[in-house]
Amino acid sequence: MKKDKLIDLGEQGIIALFEALSKGLPSFPQIVKGIGDDTAVLDMGNKYLLITTDILIENIHFDWKWFNPFQLGYRSLAVNLSDIAAMGGKARYFLVSIGLPKKFLKESLKELIAGIKSLARRHSLALIGGDTIAAPNTIVNIIVIGQVDKDKILLRSGAQMGDTIFVSSHLGEAAAGLALLKRNLIAKNPLFSKLASAHLLPEPELSLADCLANTKKVHAAIDISDGIAKDLNLLCEASGVGARIYKDLLPISKACHEAAHLLNEDPIDWALQGGEDYRLLFTVPKDQAENIKKIVSAALNQKLYVIGEIIKEGIYLDTEKLNIGGFDHFR
Amino acid sequence: MKKDKLIDLGEQGIIALFEALSKGLPSFPQIVKGIGDDTAVLDMGNKYLLITTDILIENIHFDWKWFNPFQLGYRSLAVNLSDIAAMGGKARYFLVSIGLPKKFLKESLKELIAGIKSLARRHSLALIGGDTIAAPNTIVNIIVIGQVDKDKILLRSGAQMGDTIFVSSHLGEAAAGLALLKRNLIAKNPLFSKLASAHLLPEPELSLADCLANTKKVHAAIDISDGIAKDLNLLCEASGVGARIYKDLLPISKACHEAAHLLNEDPIDWALQGGEDYRLLFTVPKDQAENIKKIVSAALNQKLYVIGEIIKEGIYLDTEKLNIGGFDHFR
Repeated sequence: MKKDKLIDLGEQGIIALFEALSKGLPSFPQIVKGIGDDTAVLDMGNKYLLITTDILIENIHFDWKWFNPFQLGYRSLAVNLSDIAAMGGKARYFLVSIGLPKKFLKESLKELIAGIKSLARRHSLALIGGDTIAAPNTIVNIIVIGQVDKDKILLRSGAQMGDTIFVSSHLGEAAAGLALLKRNLIAKNPLFSKLASAHLLPEPELSLADCLANTKKVHAAIDISDGIAKDLNLLCEASGVGARIYKDLLPISKACHEAAHLLNEDPIDWALQGGEDYRLLFTVPKDQAENIKKIVSAALNQKLYVIGEIIKEGIYLDTEKLNIGGFDHFR
Repeated sequence: MKKDKLIDLGEQGIIALFEALSKGLPSFPQIVKGIGDDTAVLDMGNKYLLITTDILIENIHFDWKWFNPFQLGYRSLAVNLSDIAAMGGKARYFLVSIGLPKKFLKESLKELIAGIKSLARRHSLALIGGDTIAAPNTIVNIIVIGQVDKDKILLRSGAQMGDTIFVSSHLGEAAAGLALLKRNLIAKNPLFSKLASAHLLPEPELSLADCLANTKKVHAAIDISDGIAKDLNLLCEASGVGARIYKDLLPISKACHEAAHLLNEDPIDWALQGGEDYRLLFTVPKDQAENIKKIVSAALNQKLYVIGEIIKEGIYLDTEKLNIGGFDHFR
C-alpha cells in the first residue's frame, strides 16, 4: 500500500478532514463558536452553552499497565472539565458512553464509576445520559455541557499585543509522570508521586477559571492539553498575534528537574512539548497582571506564573523561533 | 475467572451501572429528562434542548464485510437523528469524533465523510465540533443536539389506557437485511436490496416526528432501535401501562416474507426482536387514530400502521404474554 493513499491523522490532516466535513453545511446565528476553541459555544439567550467531548481509548490514550480503573474514570471526566474551564465556564451536565471488553471485572467497573463520580460530585455535575456497550478494547467517551455568562466567556481569540502570558501551575509535570510510569520508576523518589498524579489524576482548573472569568480582565485562554508550545500557538493563531516566552520563567518543579536528571531528559522539552497538564494558559493586559495575581492568591491561595508576553507575530523561546509540534498520538 | 466476577452488559447490568453512576449526584430543575428517554432534555427557557449520542464500533455495531464507508458515515448520524425524531424534535447541531486505524485509506475517509454529510445536509445540521484520533478499530461517535417546542415534545411516558399503538413502517426490514447481508444473499431477489438498505442506510423519521408533534395529539413515542417487543416494553414501563399487539396487524413486507422463507426464519421474530428499524412507535387516543392517519397521509404521503392498543398491564401478542428480550450485542 502506498503511504500517500493512507489517511493523515496529523494536525493538518485533521484540519482538512473537518473542513471537508463542514463545507456546505449550514451555520446558525446561535453558533458562537463551532470548531476551533476548547468547546463549542451556543447562544441560549441569557447564557452561553458550552459543549465538549473526549474519548479515551485503551492503548492510545491510556495503558492499563499504569492506569487503574479509578484513575481512568477520573481522568476521562477531568479532560472534559478542563475544556469547560478554558472557556471560563461552569460544568453542569454530563453523558457517559463506556465500551468494555467482556472480560472486564465487576470490581473494576465499580472503581471506574467511583473515579468518574469523585470528580462529578466535587463539581456538582448531573448525569443526563449514557450508554454501555461491548467493545474490543476499553473506551470511555464523556460529553460535558457547561454554561457561562455571556460577558465572562474566555476565548482563544482575544489576546492582544503586549498582554502578559500566564500559566496556572508548574509545566511538564504530566509528561515527567508518564515517562516515570512507563519505566516503573515512581518509587525511586518520594517527589515523583505527584508527577504520577499529574498524569493519572489531572486537576481541571474550574475554580481558577471561574475566578478569572469574574475579573473580566482576561483577554484569551486555552487549556494546556498538547504542551504549551502547541497550545500557545493555537491561542496566537486564533488571536492573530505572536508570543515570546522565556526559558528562565517556565515554572518547572524540583520533582520535574529530578525526574529529568534521572531519565537524562531536558525538562524544558517536557514543559514545551509534554502536554496533558490540563492547566490554564491565559493572557491579560500588562497593567492588570499584578492585580490578577493578587485576586487569585486571595481567592484561591493559588500562585500564577508569568512566562512571557504577546508580540506581533511568531512564537519565540527567548530569541529562538519555536518549531511548533506538540504531542501527536501517531509519533 | 469465575463468571460472576465479570461485568454484565445485559439490560439489567447497564441499568444497575447507571443507577450507581447517578446515585448521589445532583439534579437541576433544568433537567426535564436525564437517562430513560430517547434523548436527554434540558429546559432552555423558551425551548427544550435535546441531546443524544451513539457510538458505532467496528465488529460490534458494523462489519466492513457488508458496510462501505459511506454507509457507515450515514448510519452513524442516522441513529442519532432517530433519537431526536422520537422526541418530536428538530436536529440542529452535531459533533463527530472518529477513531481510525493507521491503515485507513484517504479514499475511504472521503466516503465516510460523504455519508455523514449527505444526511447532515438533507436535515440542515451544523457541525460544531469533533476530533479524530488513532484507534485500533474504526469508531464513529456522533453527538446530535436538537430542539423542540415545549408543548410539542414526545416522551415515552405519556401513553394512556385505550390508546391506539402505531408504527410508521414495515417491521423487521433491517433484521431481514442484516441476515441476508451476513449470508451474502442480497442478489438472490430484486426485492432484497431494500432490506439491505433498511440495515445500511436507515431513514430517520424527522419529518414524520415534526408532523406528529404539530398535531399535539400523540401521547407517547419511542424509536424502534431494539425490536418493537423491547421498545414497546420501554414505552409501557415509562408510562405505567401495558399493551396488546396483534400478529395479524404487524406490517411485514413481501420482501421480508420472501427473505424469511429463503432463510427458514419467522418474519414475526424479526418484527418483534429484530430491532434497528429506526422508525417510530407511538400511541394516540383511540378517537384520534383515523385523524392522525389522514394528517400524515396528506402531509407526507406516508402510511401508518395500527398494531394494537394500550392496556392496563403486561405486554401481549394476541393472547400470549410476551417474553421481552430485544437485540443484545452480547448474545
